[in-house]
Amino acid sequence: ADAEAGKAKAVVCAACHGGEGKAMIPGYPHLAGQSAQYTAKQLRAFRDGQRQDPVMAPMAKPLSDADIENLAAWYASLKP
Amino acid sequence: ADAEAGKAKAVVCAACHGGEGKAMIPGYPHLAGQSAQYTAKQLRAFRDGQRQDPVMAPMAKPLSDADIENLAAWYASLKP
Repeated sequence: ADAEAGKAKAVVCAACHGGEGKAMIPGYPHLAGQSAQYTAKQLRAFRDGQRQDPVMAPMAKPLSDADIENLAAWYASLKP
Repeated sequence: ADAEAGKAKAVVCAACHGGEGKAMIPGYPHLAGQSAQYTAKQLRAFRDGQRQDPVMAPMAKPLSDADIENLAAWYASLKP
């Protein structure tokens, strides 16, 4: 996975999850340092509707498998 | 919420999520420092089946609302 590409892709995510993966909005999860495997699994679940959330569905929908791996690698690389 | 009561309740969770909320098993989420509101929301979703996971369903099923608030407070209190 390419964490740098993930960083670029994460610009839209930063609005809620913070530029460094620390959520700006209470109730939204911190992602910094989270296990890449877990984050990727959740993004796939949001994308495929296996996990439902009205905010995350449209965010995850357009993501490719590579985008997902890169995003997960980027967040895992951040200091929690 | 009572984080100490949450700590006692979290003994069974530690097997996968770690005694200090750092997951022992790749692919399982770190919970240390996670937003209490988010953790509680996910536990309720697992308990009520709104979010499905074969491992978490039986874990969350027996939890009371108070248990959930206490567990969420406990994990939020841990250093990520």
